[in-house]
Formats: sequence, structure tokens, C-alpha cells
Amino acid sequence: MIGHTFIEVFQNKVAELEKKFRQIKFLGQGTIYPDRIESAQPSKFASKIKSHHNVTLPEKMKLKLIEPLKDFYKDEVRQLGKELRIPDQILNRHPFPGPGLAIRILGEITEERLKILREADYIFIEELKRSGYYDKTWQAFAALIPVKAVGVMGDARTYEYLISLRAVTSVDAMTADWARLPDELLERISARIMNEVRGVNRVLYDISQKPPATIEYE
Amino acid sequence: MIGHTFIEVFQNKVAELEKKFRQIKFLGQGTIYPDRIESAQPSKFASKIKSHHNVTLPEKMKLKLIEPLKDFYKDEVRQLGKELRIPDQILNRHPFPGPGLAIRILGEITEERLKILREADYIFIEELKRSGYYDKTWQAFAALIPVKAVGVMGDARTYEYLISLRAVTSVDAMTADWARLPDELLERISARIMNEVRGVNRVLYDISQKPPATIEYE
Repeated sequence: MIGHTFIEVFQNKVAELEKKFRQIKFLGQGTIYPDRIESAQPSKFASKIKSHHNVTLPEKMKLKLIEPLKDFYKDEVRQLGKELRIPDQILNRHPFPGPGLAIRILGEITEERLKILREADYIFIEELKRSGYYDKTWQAFAALIPVKAVGVMGDARTYEYLISLRAVTSVDAMTADWARLPDELLERISARIMNEVRGVNRVLYDISQKPPATIEYE
Repeated sequence: MIGHTFIEVFQNKVAELEKKFRQIKFLGQGTIYPDRIESAQPSKFASKIKSHHNVTLPEKMKLKLIEPLKDFYKDEVRQLGKELRIPDQILNRHPFPGPGLAIRILGEITEERLKILREADYIFIEELKRSGYYDKTWQAFAALIPVKAVGVMGDARTYEYLISLRAVTSVDAMTADWARLPDELLERISARIMNEVRGVNRVLYDISQKPPATIEYE
């Protein structure tokens, strides 16, 4: 659904721009090597692991695809970026999935859940940046687990969502290890999320290596 | 359902024993003070937080309830036990909930899920004992989160369950903090669970304090 909407919005925008200016012939896309491996159709070498990469466009789109980075791993892409003097803030930004937060909600996607997830993710990333750990991790994000567990607020019983925090270190994203964040930092993040985000009463830290887990949840 | 089955089995056993021996008049139960507070009906002081304590028996059961520990906190109960020379292995055993693993599966309870949970919990507790952390924690257990997340096994994509590990330190269970386990220990436990337990491809460590979270999940 998200992929189709993406293409639809994209096509409308192309039509709009072509009316204003001239025919658009090319589409530049930041595909890198691991995207191609992980999105490839089952073969002798790799079966389909990620389902959400839009590596190819629909046939009827007449744009020619340009993917100058498709043969490089991410660390190589960053080296190239450094040569080109791209600012660190852009160059070192964590990867973000094409379908956005939809793949970080394990179940039905609702506005309420998106709001909760955004708030939790904001606190997580803010604390990582503040403590200097953002740049020491390959990728970090919060995921919402739509299973309600019991909690206690004042004297009352509450049923709210679980938030899982994922932070990994990696060189090329083909393998990844969970980031060893300091206990005090995890403690602060967990307390802030439970205190500040309405709808969350339990926070978990993902301690799974890839493989067998993946970095993203879907 | 579990509560009712418990009473049913209990009543049958009482009848069986009474036929063999003589009338049974008393039931000794290990209720302690926090059980009474947390299972109490909503009042000025505390609303119902835990739902699974069987503090009272059905009216029609004629047994007189004896709860010699009902006014003590757990640390006091253990002091009493020490005075009575009860072996450490029994005295320091972690609490285990009345309804068993049912409250540690967040959703439908099936045989497959119980099997997975038992295996994961066994590894967790075994590693805690081996490393000396079992005695340093108040309670530790695995919980099964019946939400399937993507993983990768060899070249294939897998959808399997999440396991959450909960280990807390506490004095009286009224408040609790997540145990600061060493990274190497968490790493070993997580790797063993993912490698040895079929059906699990992601392991999370619970970093929630009580309050607002509870120790158990239900």
C-alpha cells in the first residue's frame, strides 16, 4: 500500500513538474549494494529478505533510473561523501526505511500508534545525540509492539503499549551487533519515555544480533 | 480459567485425601503482605493491580485459611526462614506467579508457545545461576511476545516470536529496578536463545522500572 501510494504521489509530481518545465527523463536513486542483495528475488545466492525496498519502478514509468551508488557498501558511500565535502550531519545520518514508521509498528498502523512511536523515537534519538552515542551507532530507532501489558500508575492498573529500542553498530549493515549503551543512558531514556509518552508503560532494549535478527523489525 | 481449574483440582484432591484419612480443616497459604495490597479490591488506598492472586477461596469450601506470613514483606519472610534454618536454595528461590507461564505469554496460550517460553526461560535462568546473578536479582524470567518480526536464517527470511527477558532488583517488590546485567552475559543469553530455541529470532531486555511498569507482564 505504501509502495503504491509512493509511486502515485511520485507520478503526480512528475506530471506537475513536466507541465511547468520540460520532460523529465531521469530518476536518481540512492540504492546501495546491500539494498540490491537483500531485495533480490530468491536465487542461489540470497532469498528475499527485505520486502520494502523499491529498487525498480513500474514498467509504465518512462524515467530512466540512475543509481550511481549501487555497487558500494554504506561505508564506501560515506567515504565518497567525505571526498565530496558533504556535511557530517547529512553524511552520518542514520538510515531510514522507505516505508517510514509503518515497518516499526508490529501490527495495524493507526494514528494513535504513530503518534506514540514518534514521541518515543524523538526522546531516544535526542538522548543519543546529547550523549554522543548517535554518531557511535549505525542506526537507532524505537519500534512499537502493539501488545498491551499491565502497569501501575499511582494506585491504578494500566494497560499500555510496549516500546522496543533498537540501536546497532555495524560496518556495512550485512551483519550488526546491538550497541552496548551505558546503563545510565538506557535508564534515562526508559524513564523519560514512560513518563513523557502517554500510552507506553514498558520499554525494552533489543539485544539481538543480525543474523539471525534483522536491524529493522519488518 | 486457571483460577477455576486450580480450585477444581484442589477440591478433588481434598475429597480424595479425606476419604483416605480424615476431615481436612485448614489450608496453609504463603500469602505475604504485598499480595494483599495488590490484590485488594479498589479502595481509598489501592485499586486492584494484580488480578491473579488467589487470596480467598470460594465460599463453599469449608477449609479455614491460615496465612501466617500475611503481615510480612518478602525480605522479612526470608529473615524468618533463615531463623528456621530453611536451606538457601528454597529460601532464595525467585517468586513464581500462581497462574504459571500463562501470564508470561502476552496473548493466546498454546502448547507451542509454552514450549518456546519454557526453553527460553531455562536458558536465561541457567546462565544467571552460572554467573552468580540469580542470587543478585529479586526475580528473573522470560516472557513471550506473540508478535512475529522478520529475521534472517542463512539466506532465508523468517517470521518468529519475540522473547523479552525481565530481571529485577528489589527489596520488597513494591518498587523494582531492572537489573544491570553485564553486557557479556546478556550477549551470551541472547545468542543462546536465538540459536537453541526454535521459534525465536529476537530477544529484548526489559529496562522498565516499577512503577510505572510492573514486574510481571499481566
